[in-house]
Amino acid sequence: MTKEQNSYTVTFLPSNKKTEVQAGTTLLAAARTTGLHINASCGGAGVCGKCRVLLEQGNITGGKSEKLSDEEYQQGYRQACISDINEDVTIRIPEESGRQKGGLGTDIPLRHRARMHVFNIDDLRQEGIFAPPVEKLFLTLTKPEIHDNRADVGRLIQGLSDQLNKHRMVTGLPVLRKIRRALREKDFNVTVTLELPVNDKSKSNILNIQPGRWDHRTFGIAIDIGTTTIYGVLLDISSGKILAQESTYNPQMSYGEDVIARIIYAEKPKGLALMQELVTDSINGLIGNMLQKAMPPEDCGHGRITRDEINSITIAGNTTMTHLLLQLEPDNIRRSPYVPVSTFFPPLRATDINLQLPSHCVALLYPAISSYVGGDIVAGVMGSGMYRTEKVTLFIDVGTNAEIVIGNKEWLACAACSAGPAFEGGGITHGMRAVEGAISDFSLNPETLEPMNITEGDKAPLGICGSGLLIIVATLFEHGVLNQSGKFNDIESPHIREGRSGREYVLAWKDECAADHDIVLNEVDIENFIRAKAAIFAGVTTLLEQVGLQVSDLEQIILAGGFGSYIDLDSAMSVGLLPEVDPDKIIYVGNGSLMGAWMSELSNHIRKDVVQVVRKMTSFELSEVAEFKDHYVASIFLPHTDSSLFPESEQRRKRQSR
Amino acid sequence: MTKEQNSYTVTFLPSNKKTEVQAGTTLLAAARTTGLHINASCGGAGVCGKCRVLLEQGNITGGKSEKLSDEEYQQGYRQACISDINEDVTIRIPEESGRQKGGLGTDIPLRHRARMHVFNIDDLRQEGIFAPPVEKLFLTLTKPEIHDNRADVGRLIQGLSDQLNKHRMVTGLPVLRKIRRALREKDFNVTVTLELPVNDKSKSNILNIQPGRWDHRTFGIAIDIGTTTIYGVLLDISSGKILAQESTYNPQMSYGEDVIARIIYAEKPKGLALMQELVTDSINGLIGNMLQKAMPPEDCGHGRITRDEINSITIAGNTTMTHLLLQLEPDNIRRSPYVPVSTFFPPLRATDINLQLPSHCVALLYPAISSYVGGDIVAGVMGSGMYRTEKVTLFIDVGTNAEIVIGNKEWLACAACSAGPAFEGGGITHGMRAVEGAISDFSLNPETLEPMNITEGDKAPLGICGSGLLIIVATLFEHGVLNQSGKFNDIESPHIREGRSGREYVLAWKDECAADHDIVLNEVDIENFIRAKAAIFAGVTTLLEQVGLQVSDLEQIILAGGFGSYIDLDSAMSVGLLPEVDPDKIIYVGNGSLMGAWMSELSNHIRKDVVQVVRKMTSFELSEVAEFKDHYVASIFLPHTDSSLFPESEQRRKRQSR
Repeated sequence: MTKEQNSYTVTFLPSNKKTEVQAGTTLLAAARTTGLHINASCGGAGVCGKCRVLLEQGNITGGKSEKLSDEEYQQGYRQACISDINEDVTIRIPEESGRQKGGLGTDIPLRHRARMHVFNIDDLRQEGIFAPPVEKLFLTLTKPEIHDNRADVGRLIQGLSDQLNKHRMVTGLPVLRKIRRALREKDFNVTVTLELPVNDKSKSNILNIQPGRWDHRTFGIAIDIGTTTIYGVLLDISSGKILAQESTYNPQMSYGEDVIARIIYAEKPKGLALMQELVTDSINGLIGNMLQKAMPPEDCGHGRITRDEINSITIAGNTTMTHLLLQLEPDNIRRSPYVPVSTFFPPLRATDINLQLPSHCVALLYPAISSYVGGDIVAGVMGSGMYRTEKVTLFIDVGTNAEIVIGNKEWLACAACSAGPAFEGGGITHGMRAVEGAISDFSLNPETLEPMNITEGDKAPLGICGSGLLIIVATLFEHGVLNQSGKFNDIESPHIREGRSGREYVLAWKDECAADHDIVLNEVDIENFIRAKAAIFAGVTTLLEQVGLQVSDLEQIILAGGFGSYIDLDSAMSVGLLPEVDPDKIIYVGNGSLMGAWMSELSNHIRKDVVQVVRKMTSFELSEVAEFKDHYVASIFLPHTDSSLFPESEQRRKRQSR
Repeated sequence: MTKEQNSYTVTFLPSNKKTEVQAGTTLLAAARTTGLHINASCGGAGVCGKCRVLLEQGNITGGKSEKLSDEEYQQGYRQACISDINEDVTIRIPEESGRQKGGLGTDIPLRHRARMHVFNIDDLRQEGIFAPPVEKLFLTLTKPEIHDNRADVGRLIQGLSDQLNKHRMVTGLPVLRKIRRALREKDFNVTVTLELPVNDKSKSNILNIQPGRWDHRTFGIAIDIGTTTIYGVLLDISSGKILAQESTYNPQMSYGEDVIARIIYAEKPKGLALMQELVTDSINGLIGNMLQKAMPPEDCGHGRITRDEINSITIAGNTTMTHLLLQLEPDNIRRSPYVPVSTFFPPLRATDINLQLPSHCVALLYPAISSYVGGDIVAGVMGSGMYRTEKVTLFIDVGTNAEIVIGNKEWLACAACSAGPAFEGGGITHGMRAVEGAISDFSLNPETLEPMNITEGDKAPLGICGSGLLIIVATLFEHGVLNQSGKFNDIESPHIREGRSGREYVLAWKDECAADHDIVLNEVDIENFIRAKAAIFAGVTTLLEQVGLQVSDLEQIILAGGFGSYIDLDSAMSVGLLPEVDPDKIIYVGNGSLMGAWMSELSNHIRKDVVQVVRKMTSFELSEVAEFKDHYVASIFLPHTDSSLFPESEQRRKRQSR
């Protein structure tokens, strides 16, 4: 391991485990990366005082709250969760902070995150896929005189043909309204913006004309409208570089957390118009922020990028989000037989959907497959490269709905399964989104059942987010605290008690956390979690069956979406959320929807291919496949009724069982 | 001559000339059609009292003002100009009303109007040119169910393909926003409006969708934006029938009479926007009036035609009018080298130019050739059929500018010549447009030089319009009152006197007319007229030379525009406005611009052919052709310096000379 800049070595005694961490990492987080358990209920807020460790060499920043006496501090004790590492240090984990039985520093399972797939513009270039749909061309036209007094537009088109070998042009009113001044302002030196046709038979569109030299300034925007969050990137189309990226809360949230609630709101008088206004306002704000942040490319004296320079915007979102953006009535999306208004969307003017972009700006919407397999998934299939790989691939985007795609460059099958909101914190007593204070990582002292809670932002715990829920359930299950039905075994522990919804495990006591109550996970929560993972697994199994494949045929699994980035693969396989495969086959692509939108901004190949991909994608309505129900029932179990499907999970339980 | 309904026979004594006229025609007008001169200065207002005739048989309506005593009335005298014919009558023209020398009822030249070319939809059908660009189709779609839950748009497109063999569709946001309700309102019975592609390779566009049965209701609008008047027709696209037609004053008139004045106004701050607003407001009003007047075709219970049912509008106008409508800066149209912004215009949404038409309505603008050969002329070439005839044709549209096109289906050459406003009443002391009170027809008592003025609307004279000007000059010239330089010969008459601008002929005395002065035509007026006709004739001559032809090669002359309908062909050839050809070769097509717009509404062939026609039309800038100046100078003469070009004119003068 080469030592990176600003990274330091932490040595944990007595196990002598070493780890390299970035400056500012807490000792608690550092211990987690080595697979060492330190009791820590308060997740990094410094209030439980359980995570005290002994500093043997070097110095750390912080490390003391009122839970630690001055005398203890003098002796070298530090609270691991509030100790920031800024140099190489050696730390001893005392008995009470680590395992209480089985020796100090005994292993706890390391987290196996999926390998991150990094989008690389050079790869696109090498594959010949980088083919910007918009290009800017500078040219000097001859000046009109009485023997050559053709119209301004005719002169421009002739110039493009004669000088640049660009033929077959169309243009629109915005250019017609600007061209007279544009030509004459800089003595017939102009820059034109061409939108190249996706189809060779079509014509190029002169999108814009600017006086003087503006080539090398070709900008576009890609947007992912998530149900919760809207993400955007501002792109330099000629180089493929990202100039800015931003995200913002989807303000429709105030009118309903999930798509069904949004549709219900949109059915009210003026509801649809409001939904549209909210999302366009957000996108407009997002664009403004990106333009403010973006450093323009080096150019001949032009300054910041303005809205007027945005020539195209590509937007991906699920089918409901797309309908709301376009102000299409989403009513039938939520009613059987679940019919959207449209699954493909013509190229629009950005101004048609009230985006504050110039009148010549083109807006492309990612096509969808069905009411519940939307443009976000199609974008994910495009962005992740799944549509052009030979490997038989399983693509999963987990949210309130989990969308599943199986296939490769030859064929694609897809389905949506209603997982319920458990992975987004819904239906879980103390569930929450992955924001500050959410318990997102966890380990267990198998003797005392004392937790090690790691929270988002190292804040006092406020609840449990999706990735936390998964790892907590998996850990409790692996250690035999939960049985295969998701019920608590008969174990005596101060952390396990009878609650209002069956038995429950206490993750953090009221005085250790930011909530005004103990944070618990109860049997009803676990049941909801199991139903959610069962829906996904049954979906995968059913879809595999429909295409005549087995888990062993999968050569690759692509995880997309916010949840996928934090998922502990071992936990996911332990509980039967994902099928057991070699973790190396699993990659995480992040926001696949945004990536697809972004690639469409950069490549006419993608714009063209997406039409074929959508035609190729066979959609299965799982509720209509008889076997789905059986698979679902068989999956409402940890990990599955058929434990032979999860041999590894059984081994893991055997190893870790108390 | 077969007797038409509501037409009556008038017999004039002593010549025994008979004429058939429509009910309500005045005796004065009836006499004119027989070639009989009746003195009449006041043009039909009944104030000069010179036009008294004797009723010998039958009765007439009116016929008496204070200029006629009760006693005279009892004797059978009537004032011809206020006598309406409503039955067969016999009339005697007394000495004082007719010629005073040469016998009663001696011939005056009859007017030779050009044969009217009537637009006939059946001819189009026979030629295979009638091919409506928009069609409506009724279809019943299968209803969605869980095993067939494709999107609404997908269902429609599949239905069009399966049931009607219509493939390759696109659509837009307006249809996407309506389709959900449209499908379900009448149980999946819908009518779709298809815009068929001009080019076979392109896709059809689903313009609109309506619940239930609405086929046989396909409407479109054609508009001609004249500098003075805007004309419109509302068309039934499926049958080709006219449902209503309207015209209205172009309100831009208040900001300038001709295109140059409008351009100057448009160059002022907010001037262009105002010019656009004025013309669109007028068109919107015109459409409203047409919709109100139109009787809808028989249908299944739908009532009046609404704006929402208009699917397309085609607009033709000269280059400046088109620029103002589209809000394109017209500045360079009036400045050498006379460069318009564009000569072709992409298909627009009607709403883009603020027309109050539905969001799906397509607006087509006729392409132009140059700054002064506009879309109105191209439309005339299309509408008159010139572009598909084998006959070598001269097409002339006379207004402030005269546009000339020579050619046939193989080739076309065009030019504009600045005739000045004489033919529209400009630059003529008592010139006016062809509205009520304008002297539009004229004959002369060669002995007394007493006029027979016939006015628009049979009102007291207010001034002289273009067609009146032509016939007055020609008549004065033919009778030797004017010499070949357009100066008055030395003739003693109360009607000829010295005025402020040289000598002048008095057409009507102050007390006989609606003006507060005598109405005269002076030598300066005549000079202006000669310059105007010289410009046109020189233009025709130059253009013929440029294409290597002579007048004798012309197989057909097409006159277009408002002036052309009233033009007396003999007069036009007498003064050298038109070359001398067999009058049977001359046809009048009326408003060629409107006709072209209208045919584009009805035929995709025309929409396709116009692109080729525009490419084919070679434009000549007359000011740059050296010979033009020579031809012009040679033409500033009545009829021409080279009188061998006008042998017929000379003959006519010899016959009629005093």
